[in-house]
Amino acid sequence: MEIVPGPLLQTINSPADLKVLPREKLHQVCDELRQYIIDVVSVHGGHFAASLGVVELTTALHYVYNTPYDQLVWDVGHQAYGHKILTGRRDNFVSNRKYKGISGFPKRSESEYDTFGVGHSSTSISAALGMAMAAKYKGETDRKVVAVIGDGAMTAGLAFEGMNHAGVADSDMLIILNDNCMGIDPNVGALKEYLTDITTSPTYNKVKDDVWKLLGKLPVGKDFSRGMGHKLAEGLKGMVSSSANLFEALKLRYFGPIDGHNVAKLVDTLRDLRGIPGPKLLHVITTKGKGYALAEKDQTKWHAPGLFDKVTGEIFKKKFDVPQPPKYQDVFGYTMIELAEQNDKVMGITPAMPSGSSLKFMMEKMPDRAIDVGIAEQHAVTLSAGMATQGLRVFCNIYSSFMQRAFDSVVHDVAIQKLPVVFCLDRAGLVGDDGPTHHGCYDIAFFRCIPNMIISSPMNESELRNLMYTAQLSTQTLPFVIRYPRGEGMMPEWRTEMKEIVVGTGRKLKEGKDIAILTLGHPGNFAAAAIRELKPEGITPGHYDMRFVKPLDEAMLHEVCQQYPKLITVEDGTVEGGFGSAILEFMARNGYTNEVKILGIPDRIVEHGTPKELQRECGYDAAGIAEMVRTMLRSSVAEHEPVA
Amino acid sequence: MEIVPGPLLQTINSPADLKVLPREKLHQVCDELRQYIIDVVSVHGGHFAASLGVVELTTALHYVYNTPYDQLVWDVGHQAYGHKILTGRRDNFVSNRKYKGISGFPKRSESEYDTFGVGHSSTSISAALGMAMAAKYKGETDRKVVAVIGDGAMTAGLAFEGMNHAGVADSDMLIILNDNCMGIDPNVGALKEYLTDITTSPTYNKVKDDVWKLLGKLPVGKDFSRGMGHKLAEGLKGMVSSSANLFEALKLRYFGPIDGHNVAKLVDTLRDLRGIPGPKLLHVITTKGKGYALAEKDQTKWHAPGLFDKVTGEIFKKKFDVPQPPKYQDVFGYTMIELAEQNDKVMGITPAMPSGSSLKFMMEKMPDRAIDVGIAEQHAVTLSAGMATQGLRVFCNIYSSFMQRAFDSVVHDVAIQKLPVVFCLDRAGLVGDDGPTHHGCYDIAFFRCIPNMIISSPMNESELRNLMYTAQLSTQTLPFVIRYPRGEGMMPEWRTEMKEIVVGTGRKLKEGKDIAILTLGHPGNFAAAAIRELKPEGITPGHYDMRFVKPLDEAMLHEVCQQYPKLITVEDGTVEGGFGSAILEFMARNGYTNEVKILGIPDRIVEHGTPKELQRECGYDAAGIAEMVRTMLRSSVAEHEPVA
Repeated sequence: MEIVPGPLLQTINSPADLKVLPREKLHQVCDELRQYIIDVVSVHGGHFAASLGVVELTTALHYVYNTPYDQLVWDVGHQAYGHKILTGRRDNFVSNRKYKGISGFPKRSESEYDTFGVGHSSTSISAALGMAMAAKYKGETDRKVVAVIGDGAMTAGLAFEGMNHAGVADSDMLIILNDNCMGIDPNVGALKEYLTDITTSPTYNKVKDDVWKLLGKLPVGKDFSRGMGHKLAEGLKGMVSSSANLFEALKLRYFGPIDGHNVAKLVDTLRDLRGIPGPKLLHVITTKGKGYALAEKDQTKWHAPGLFDKVTGEIFKKKFDVPQPPKYQDVFGYTMIELAEQNDKVMGITPAMPSGSSLKFMMEKMPDRAIDVGIAEQHAVTLSAGMATQGLRVFCNIYSSFMQRAFDSVVHDVAIQKLPVVFCLDRAGLVGDDGPTHHGCYDIAFFRCIPNMIISSPMNESELRNLMYTAQLSTQTLPFVIRYPRGEGMMPEWRTEMKEIVVGTGRKLKEGKDIAILTLGHPGNFAAAAIRELKPEGITPGHYDMRFVKPLDEAMLHEVCQQYPKLITVEDGTVEGGFGSAILEFMARNGYTNEVKILGIPDRIVEHGTPKELQRECGYDAAGIAEMVRTMLRSSVAEHEPVA
Repeated sequence: MEIVPGPLLQTINSPADLKVLPREKLHQVCDELRQYIIDVVSVHGGHFAASLGVVELTTALHYVYNTPYDQLVWDVGHQAYGHKILTGRRDNFVSNRKYKGISGFPKRSESEYDTFGVGHSSTSISAALGMAMAAKYKGETDRKVVAVIGDGAMTAGLAFEGMNHAGVADSDMLIILNDNCMGIDPNVGALKEYLTDITTSPTYNKVKDDVWKLLGKLPVGKDFSRGMGHKLAEGLKGMVSSSANLFEALKLRYFGPIDGHNVAKLVDTLRDLRGIPGPKLLHVITTKGKGYALAEKDQTKWHAPGLFDKVTGEIFKKKFDVPQPPKYQDVFGYTMIELAEQNDKVMGITPAMPSGSSLKFMMEKMPDRAIDVGIAEQHAVTLSAGMATQGLRVFCNIYSSFMQRAFDSVVHDVAIQKLPVVFCLDRAGLVGDDGPTHHGCYDIAFFRCIPNMIISSPMNESELRNLMYTAQLSTQTLPFVIRYPRGEGMMPEWRTEMKEIVVGTGRKLKEGKDIAILTLGHPGNFAAAAIRELKPEGITPGHYDMRFVKPLDEAMLHEVCQQYPKLITVEDGTVEGGFGSAILEFMARNGYTNEVKILGIPDRIVEHGTPKELQRECGYDAAGIAEMVRTMLRSSVAEHEPVA
């Protein structure tokens, strides 16, 4: 069934078409935009509630500002669907997040309206400030820059660093705080409580009213001179700072809070603010999921619900006749409770991913032992280190790509001090439709270079449980990384008895001939499938699940190097500096000269698509492994002379 | 000449000896402690002004708190000399920062009083909160945790993340804000201005006076009950928040500002605060360099002045008869000005290291084009990315080990978007006496795994200039890393004409026989020395300065692999996943089986010492390279059979 945008939305091919509409028509634009998002996402999937929450803000911003000359930076980007639809991607929007389709996030290469690529949170203030400072340096005094950032994203240190600079940089920039009390899960922390305070406190509302009364009396528009704007702003500043606000303390002029679903008010407000120079912050209150009742009610569930019946709100789940393997994240979540019940030192930490990591199960059951610290990966790691100094065994669960933000904390606070923190890296490998910002490509390489680290990856649910069990034993005295992918494992009967795995030991899964396949983690299953595929051809590679990339199972590697002239390594991480390189380093140290081919994520940015599509593209799925085996065996027939 | 501590300090072998003194004697302890620091640092070197600034605070903390049961976390650690001297390391203090001596920073393995190892800034709140939460979970209700953090360190995002959590975590923890308006260079940013405001504003001082009047009337000491403390705190909170303070907004009870050089007042205050439960912040005003007039006057110069005459204040500089090579950092600093004069797109960014990076030269000459953003590495990178979207060519200078904190910003904001930001990584390799927290070991490995990156390292000053020149050419469209070490280069006449280096090309420095040495960056000079050393023995290795680890000079590598059966790679980075591994990957891709030995920083934590001592220990100095050449040549005589 074709999805047809509303009659007004059909006419909007760029913000220019929006700008010619009278202000009174914007309500209809918002309604149609909201409906179009519901129509498309219910059928094609994607992030949902965040974009619904900023329909009015998006419309008002493109109505008032001269985009793309004026620059709009969306933080995180979950909420940018409306922006995409209004900036020339309406008809292409059905390809959202699909292989070769448009990205689910703003992306510079996709549109000149996407000023800054995002996916991770909290970058918008710094990026927008860079743009504003560049405009000032280049003398583009008429050019405006706006960053739109959520209250969840505001908790990350990077956002604070940006504000601390913005307040003194004297650049013409507006930060819009999109306050909906949510990240993916409900927002937490002191800042969130503060925002609630100032939103509900009568003092602040009094000030707010005075401010808007004053603004209402002032001439608005192009001829609203810089001098006047400055005077006004100074006046307002005095008023607002008399109630001494956190943002004012950081030298940002504070305006708001205002209702983010009143598009007319938003337009008026933005028009006024457009004329006020200097760094400023507008506090906008929105409801995540606005306009779709179920989403408003359960915002976490409707953050990215998958496909659903837009009328009944039924979220479609695939139905199966036989039991299916669980998601790795759920194995983590349930196993945490089991371990914590046995070992009172076990604690769980997540930076804003209780649902995504499934730590929420433990948070519900043991609220004093499983903690969401908000979007704050560095703090999550350093806090875990502090707890570890007191003998606690903290499982700090951070998605592989978000762990990039805590790299120094791992080196400086954990590894150098040899503190036995357990890092569970969910979403390791290619994550699929979230694309390049979210792929967990680099963790093997960036962790492998750090001394004292144990780095492991389970091939299935049982191995994940065993690794988690092993990591919490009091005999383990080093930082312990367990990386596993997004999505399902392999074992419908996953609740196996847990047992220790000796650190640095792999498993010989299959003895073979001529060629050995060394795998790390879940892609071991691709290798097993490749071996099944090759059997009818009379090709029988050996298969070794190394389990640990650090320390390596050197005994097993000696055996493998001596038995097989050819090796293939398989990992769902970058081929530069990863698992395959670790094998090469072992060989160099020990004088082995086996032929080696490394399969994994190539040294380029891999775009979005399903994990299967992307693994195919990268050549480390079963077909790719089988093909590499054939190629290597062919080459040993064709040429037998060493090159040097 | 032996350095003798004062008569009272001589008797203090642990805080227990301090605690038995009457409060009136603490002035003398402070005087003697300050003098001992001056005596030792003037003769043995080290960080200077920071420790002088917290002599009273250090003394008061150990006097009031029950360390090490009560836990004291020093941020950064530059300021912890007094702490070390009072906690059993007085006589050992002369070995400070020397090879095999005590560390210049708090270090867990050195003393039970060093609760958390530091070196990088801004970790203390998170670490202390972890300790406080652990104490609460374990029911250790009498256990106190104190974090001491400077106003400079407070600007980093991690500190904000910690506060955002601390305010709502309901743990018993005190943050002491040691406000001296300084990092190594003067502090910058909105927070710093705010702190100045509240320190000087009459409103705040009025509140302060009221608070202390109230505190003065209250019973103090052990029998000051929890209930009373709570009531008092609530009362104070109301008073202080009526002037709505930034820290109060973050749900931290704010106390202060108070004079950090009045030890009696500090003792009284800390005793009071010890009895007040919950998260709280004490704002203490100190003077960096306090008690040594010259240091108070030029705090940046006296941060770590080197050896000096403590009476005259003359800082000793080695004198030479012939011109000496400059520091790499100065070559960077002066070359920036040259490039900026030629190219109006060139900008410079440093996170709080104007002096250390020598960007200060450009900041003085072109203040609108060279910017210190404070301790905020993530922001520095993302801001640079924002500027790069506007066509500016930003040189973002960050020490290698501090770049660890901006890893995600490089991946997410720069590399994925292919923005041509130039990263100058000063202090790459082993930095010497700062030790493990500051060694720049990992950058080759952690940057090499990121697609789109150009990664280079100059062997001397002229190469540094050429790489910088190359990086700013409009033909360069990718992120460009230039890594160089701490200290001096090789060329007294360094101001050579700049010319483009074709990206991904190395230099053949010397044709040789049997064995080729492939080097990256400054250690190429060690290889050259090794080759000179080997010449009389009739050993003549080839020498190739690869210059780029990404992209590799593949044409040169084909030539090398075909010409020499044996290769040695040399880098001042970790041997796991670094330059040597890149060579192994090239060989695997191309089927080469040359024997390869990788020299560099081994896979363990390397402690402090001079760079020479440490390079010797790691075996990649000239002697180590020469020895490896001999070993490899011997082995080719002894055994000639391939292992597999």
